[in-house]
Amino acid sequence: MDLLLKDVWIPLPGYERFERGDLLIRGGVISKVGEVDLSSLGGNVWKIYGRGKLAVIPGLVNAHSHVAMSLLRGVSEELPLKRWLEERIWPLEAKLEAEDVYWGSLLSIAEMISGGVTCFADMYFYMDQVALAAKESGVRANLSRGLIEGFMDTRLEEGLRLIRAWDGHDGRIRVFLGPHAPYTCSPEFLRRIAEIALEEGVGVHVHWLETAWERDYIEGSLGKDPILLLGELGLDRAKRLLLAHGVFLPRERLSEMARENVFVVHNPSSNMKLGSGFAPVPEMIEAGVNVALGTDGPASNDRQDLFWEMRLCALVHKGAKGDPTAVKAKDVLKMATEVGSRALGFEGIGRIEEGFEADLVLVDLDRPNYVGFDEENLSSMLVYAGSSSDVLATFVRGVPLYYRGEFKTIDLERVKFEVLRSRRRLLG
Amino acid sequence: MDLLLKDVWIPLPGYERFERGDLLIRGGVISKVGEVDLSSLGGNVWKIYGRGKLAVIPGLVNAHSHVAMSLLRGVSEELPLKRWLEERIWPLEAKLEAEDVYWGSLLSIAEMISGGVTCFADMYFYMDQVALAAKESGVRANLSRGLIEGFMDTRLEEGLRLIRAWDGHDGRIRVFLGPHAPYTCSPEFLRRIAEIALEEGVGVHVHWLETAWERDYIEGSLGKDPILLLGELGLDRAKRLLLAHGVFLPRERLSEMARENVFVVHNPSSNMKLGSGFAPVPEMIEAGVNVALGTDGPASNDRQDLFWEMRLCALVHKGAKGDPTAVKAKDVLKMATEVGSRALGFEGIGRIEEGFEADLVLVDLDRPNYVGFDEENLSSMLVYAGSSSDVLATFVRGVPLYYRGEFKTIDLERVKFEVLRSRRRLLG
Repeated sequence: MDLLLKDVWIPLPGYERFERGDLLIRGGVISKVGEVDLSSLGGNVWKIYGRGKLAVIPGLVNAHSHVAMSLLRGVSEELPLKRWLEERIWPLEAKLEAEDVYWGSLLSIAEMISGGVTCFADMYFYMDQVALAAKESGVRANLSRGLIEGFMDTRLEEGLRLIRAWDGHDGRIRVFLGPHAPYTCSPEFLRRIAEIALEEGVGVHVHWLETAWERDYIEGSLGKDPILLLGELGLDRAKRLLLAHGVFLPRERLSEMARENVFVVHNPSSNMKLGSGFAPVPEMIEAGVNVALGTDGPASNDRQDLFWEMRLCALVHKGAKGDPTAVKAKDVLKMATEVGSRALGFEGIGRIEEGFEADLVLVDLDRPNYVGFDEENLSSMLVYAGSSSDVLATFVRGVPLYYRGEFKTIDLERVKFEVLRSRRRLLG
Repeated sequence: MDLLLKDVWIPLPGYERFERGDLLIRGGVISKVGEVDLSSLGGNVWKIYGRGKLAVIPGLVNAHSHVAMSLLRGVSEELPLKRWLEERIWPLEAKLEAEDVYWGSLLSIAEMISGGVTCFADMYFYMDQVALAAKESGVRANLSRGLIEGFMDTRLEEGLRLIRAWDGHDGRIRVFLGPHAPYTCSPEFLRRIAEIALEEGVGVHVHWLETAWERDYIEGSLGKDPILLLGELGLDRAKRLLLAHGVFLPRERLSEMARENVFVVHNPSSNMKLGSGFAPVPEMIEAGVNVALGTDGPASNDRQDLFWEMRLCALVHKGAKGDPTAVKAKDVLKMATEVGSRALGFEGIGRIEEGFEADLVLVDLDRPNYVGFDEENLSSMLVYAGSSSDVLATFVRGVPLYYRGEFKTIDLERVKFEVLRSRRRLLG
């Protein structure tokens, strides 16, 4: 069925302003932006009338998570990172089974689509289950089997098998190689992965410079420069290089990171909750680095909520730099949409233009927090006054996944039941 | 009508854990916490069945705002503070009329009660209108006429008249004296206000150390120590002293601020949006200072949302200090409830105990973000996973102001219409 969004607010490229108009979606693709004459349409069109009280924005992209960790949300709080991982998270993850990952992924996907996320990047294990959850729920996903040194060959094989099985599936799933981090993979292993990624023509998703400890490990134990190391290992030649976190990227050398295929994923909530710090986002934007936004997994960021990350990103760097002009609303909207889409290897999504796929979010502007919005301030209103609960509908390729509080592709009660069952087994 | 909350999760004092039980409210007061036998009740009782899927928490207290500035939300963004105030905010405020303030206040009150706020502190002008909005909507309020040097006598008279007219009204309104800030009121004026506050037996609400510029002004132009100055002026002898912001309180001297009648109001979103910085909250808690939470006005914090401020407060200081144990979930819940209530001069609210007034919030735990909550982790879940959109009901003295998406005391459509009309006059 085709879809007409009549009389809605549509962002111009760059989010400098919005214009009031119509959006026609045919075959999952944006076929017209502007004025659509109702009499020109056939019968089989779902029409949503915005009456100037709805905004449409591109689907939000959560560019770094471990979504199945909704199974571990709230099990361990306010502990230092090392104790948190070693005493709580890792022992529980060792007990996870494939089916747990399926249900945990669906729970996070439900939370994400209800908040306007249409696409996410995930690094974990039992990734076939994450793929299945993405396939069934209709969302887009970029998936990587997490690879660490100790299980190098078996896991690398799993990672390759994931590529064969799922890369390109339905045009909605991309598979990258996912070496966990420079402190869990040796330089030799990382080099091998970089080579395979080149051969396979896939991207690489890796944690990079999340903590001061990790920076010191690279510089001290490995004796390497953490930026040059990417080139030495050949990681920076991957089709896409997704560097999660980048909190400790050296501020004075960010221009070296400004490459078309390299993306830093900023996860502000998680970096704060684990006490890691604030990534140099204003400086990265200034230097022309591609910066996308992510939530990280629900065990270190209990909300899989890009509206939260957008607002937090727009606020915290103003506070940290003492500069109210740092990281503008339009910047975070770009990060959460078009930059994220490119980072995850999807072409033709992330903007509202004719010919782009219709991954779209409808935002209800008829709420107390938006009173007084206009074409000039709507980007600011969405970022500073908005929240995920303002999302009225979420579409991928014009298909509604969430509409007026209802999940169209997920049996949420079943998912909650199964996740609780898994948690009882894991924790009980 | 009495109210029974049957089978809900109730926090123990200190928020270390929650227990499942019933809450009986009679005559606006919590008359029983524990198990309530249905057969012991008379007929005229509204019963809400939680079935273990609702939490009840004390009403949240927004301890610093200028709520009518919803009229100016989004009119000026991402400007340095001085230009923001001088070029945009002040010229528009000069055009405000009494009725504008009434409607603007109601709009923010609607937003607040839908997010679980039952009590707020406000400093602005046309304060009779804010009082009227609070009276009619059923919320609690602490009100201060903003006082600045140039209009000292007329405004002081207005401030005193506000006390006579509204202090103690219906037990729901408290009036404080509201000298704006040490850079808009001379030491002599502040001393006179401190004396009058003592005579009248009311508290004082003042901006204090919001920006580095303000600290330098006090130390440089006034030649004073910003903590000792409070004592010199006699402000610290007020019944309550509410210091908004305190971003630049010297970290090594916070123990001097630990006094029963002195409260610092932390406004994290606003302090970030204006580029002011991060208040020393972990250090204040450590030093035993009373710290409450506020939003500040909607022009510098577009959301009047205490759930946002709670989560932000719990996250940002972990990031700034590099310490995942800084500012715990139970700390921010106390700040937002019992500390805030005391700060605003209300006795007998802010805790769920027999004999306390029933200012209460029901939170819907049957949502994807709370799957896996338990008696131990529920404080963390509420702060890190929760949001204002999870609020099912907000009560003041057992009277529902908001229930299942409906405003019981506010005609929201009328309010939106009137605010838009005011904005057109102000901006057009």
